[in-house]
Amino acid sequence: MYDVNKVRADFPILAREVNGQPLTYLDNGASAQKPQAVIDAVTRGYDNEYANVHRGLHYLSNLSTDRYEAVRGIIARFLNAGSEDEIILNSGTTEGINMVAYSWAAPRMVEGDEIVLSTMEHHANIVPWHFLRERQGVRLVWVDPEPDGSLDPAKVLAAITPRTRLVAVTHCSNVLGTVVDVKTIVAGAHDKGVPVLVDGSQGAVHMKVDVQDIGADFYPITGHKLYGPSGSGAIYVRAERLAEMQPFMGGGDMIREVTKDAVSYADPPMKFEAGTPAIVPTIGLGVALEYLMDLGMDNVAAHEARLASYARERFKALNWLNIQGDAPGKAAIFSMTVEGGAHAHDISTILDKKGIAVRAGHHCAQPLMEHLGVPATARASFALYNTEAEVDRLVEGLELCHRLFS
Amino acid sequence: MYDVNKVRADFPILAREVNGQPLTYLDNGASAQKPQAVIDAVTRGYDNEYANVHRGLHYLSNLSTDRYEAVRGIIARFLNAGSEDEIILNSGTTEGINMVAYSWAAPRMVEGDEIVLSTMEHHANIVPWHFLRERQGVRLVWVDPEPDGSLDPAKVLAAITPRTRLVAVTHCSNVLGTVVDVKTIVAGAHDKGVPVLVDGSQGAVHMKVDVQDIGADFYPITGHKLYGPSGSGAIYVRAERLAEMQPFMGGGDMIREVTKDAVSYADPPMKFEAGTPAIVPTIGLGVALEYLMDLGMDNVAAHEARLASYARERFKALNWLNIQGDAPGKAAIFSMTVEGGAHAHDISTILDKKGIAVRAGHHCAQPLMEHLGVPATARASFALYNTEAEVDRLVEGLELCHRLFS
Repeated sequence: MYDVNKVRADFPILAREVNGQPLTYLDNGASAQKPQAVIDAVTRGYDNEYANVHRGLHYLSNLSTDRYEAVRGIIARFLNAGSEDEIILNSGTTEGINMVAYSWAAPRMVEGDEIVLSTMEHHANIVPWHFLRERQGVRLVWVDPEPDGSLDPAKVLAAITPRTRLVAVTHCSNVLGTVVDVKTIVAGAHDKGVPVLVDGSQGAVHMKVDVQDIGADFYPITGHKLYGPSGSGAIYVRAERLAEMQPFMGGGDMIREVTKDAVSYADPPMKFEAGTPAIVPTIGLGVALEYLMDLGMDNVAAHEARLASYARERFKALNWLNIQGDAPGKAAIFSMTVEGGAHAHDISTILDKKGIAVRAGHHCAQPLMEHLGVPATARASFALYNTEAEVDRLVEGLELCHRLFS
Repeated sequence: MYDVNKVRADFPILAREVNGQPLTYLDNGASAQKPQAVIDAVTRGYDNEYANVHRGLHYLSNLSTDRYEAVRGIIARFLNAGSEDEIILNSGTTEGINMVAYSWAAPRMVEGDEIVLSTMEHHANIVPWHFLRERQGVRLVWVDPEPDGSLDPAKVLAAITPRTRLVAVTHCSNVLGTVVDVKTIVAGAHDKGVPVLVDGSQGAVHMKVDVQDIGADFYPITGHKLYGPSGSGAIYVRAERLAEMQPFMGGGDMIREVTKDAVSYADPPMKFEAGTPAIVPTIGLGVALEYLMDLGMDNVAAHEARLASYARERFKALNWLNIQGDAPGKAAIFSMTVEGGAHAHDISTILDKKGIAVRAGHHCAQPLMEHLGVPATARASFALYNTEAEVDRLVEGLELCHRLFS
């Protein structure tokens, strides 16, 4: 039985007030709060167990290395990767996708080659591909979502041509909450010999992910959205793709041998991890993922589905409220506009006075905003610690916005 | 008056034991320990003040943004940059130098262009340039240190040819402790129209740095060596060079506008900061630099100079001990080999039994190791919290190594 009050007690920040009201934190799509176990791991990592990793032989360095390297296995288990050697530790999805762009895509793509993207992608899964367009003439081919916000796998597959070199698609839209049928897309793309990057930045937070079942070639995740520390992250890269990649950043740890005239590289995953990593944040990410696996990602998903369902019921009664996206099975992410007045930024500001944190803006998804014909939305994004009472509070706040602006 | 015992009390890990002995932490060249103020800032960043930065309008997001953005000014002050817009926040020196390689050097260098490096460089300031050699035929031109470990600015300047596009040189060797006269190198290189990257990874830790006085074009620093959190860092880039750089990583925050067909970029420094940054580690770095400025970097340097001087006196009596590098004014970094037996790794292991943490290996400086003709050294690197008593403990440990292996 999922006990949300017990879960909430694990997150110290949830006990605080904002503007004299209990904090109602609904900005989880931007970043999630941290359980005490993660905060404690970070503190311990600094006040009792700190040293650099990999290159020491002394006690603290060995301890730190053991704790750090154990996270690779935890992430592999969390994503059900075939091997922990397919997990590259980094600072998050943005770095992960840029690594794919620089290390895998750029060296193998030429003018006229194509990348298929959905219009729902986050800028992190757009701008690195725009670089390839600007710098080497790669074409970006866009697939729009359906009116309900769903993405039709058949349309994605139909966009593939003999020049397509990559499909890059989100697992879960950070604006619409749409969960994409990435398994069907990957299977169809692979039939045509095209690798697929699945942006797991939101997906891994809201459901149990099995990268082998999905079949993804690349699956980046972000630690801070997964209840882990700032600056932590990873990317799963299937072994065949790893073998095709040139190094991204150069420095310590990723080399085998350096001379004045030559350099040779370590085997993956180390080949793609240059310099001193984010040791303590990564250790904290391991604790966060253990926390999620202890709760059970299926239980987390079920809790959030109940919240989403309750929220949709409550929103239905507000006939002046527009919710962007209503795809079946969507995650508990609601991008809202209010008819006849309140701008997204006004909504956010008014809700903030009630202690309710939502995000206003384009959510780093400007092509989607343009497709939807809205300049901005106010987005309430729910997490494993949110409650139906918080949905009620949000609805009260929205009603206040409506009253103030109508 | 610099009170080292008061300073030590600020670092909780220094009170612990290792292998039943008080910890003598002399692996500061790899990474430094953290004062309680930094640890507290990190904890507070997570348990009471956490949200994503820049894109929120709610209270916690504004608070987090204010705390995060204030660090840019703190770093500018720490390095005496002309403007905080010349400070790019990142994960450390490795990312900083790779950004320069990808964003500034790669687009403007062609086959036969040259980069002048010293043989003392860390791999972080070598491998990114090897990439340019491998990928676009750039030539690496090496300047060896003198027998005492010093680097002759005249030799660096003499290596500049009409094809030289960059000089990349460390401010302070992580192996020899040599402090390089970078101001003379920069002045001479600029006279020939050649920009200079000064690797500040060690230099900024051991002395007061003034990037305007040095005249550096690029000056990367690493947070975790500066008593700050894992995964934090920055690079100073002079405004003229910033204007010449194309974006490095693409994603959120670094754009002005994204459409399906086009992308435009934010102004520097944001142009070079993609995605959610390492928010809390960066806030912690700000606290670390404030801590250093409160102590006074001149006082830190004077304390370390006293330690270095004391250590050199004590080492002189050990006629079986070789110290690599004896340049005037060198930092308190001692790379050691013991004649007739004990390998660097043996030394490290034996010292560890006495609670003394030193690093053994090539210290990510293989070209220097080859130049010195040693496969590895044991390196004791001192910090602002080390004491003469710890030098004595190190000497006792080295005497034990000598007895065991002779």
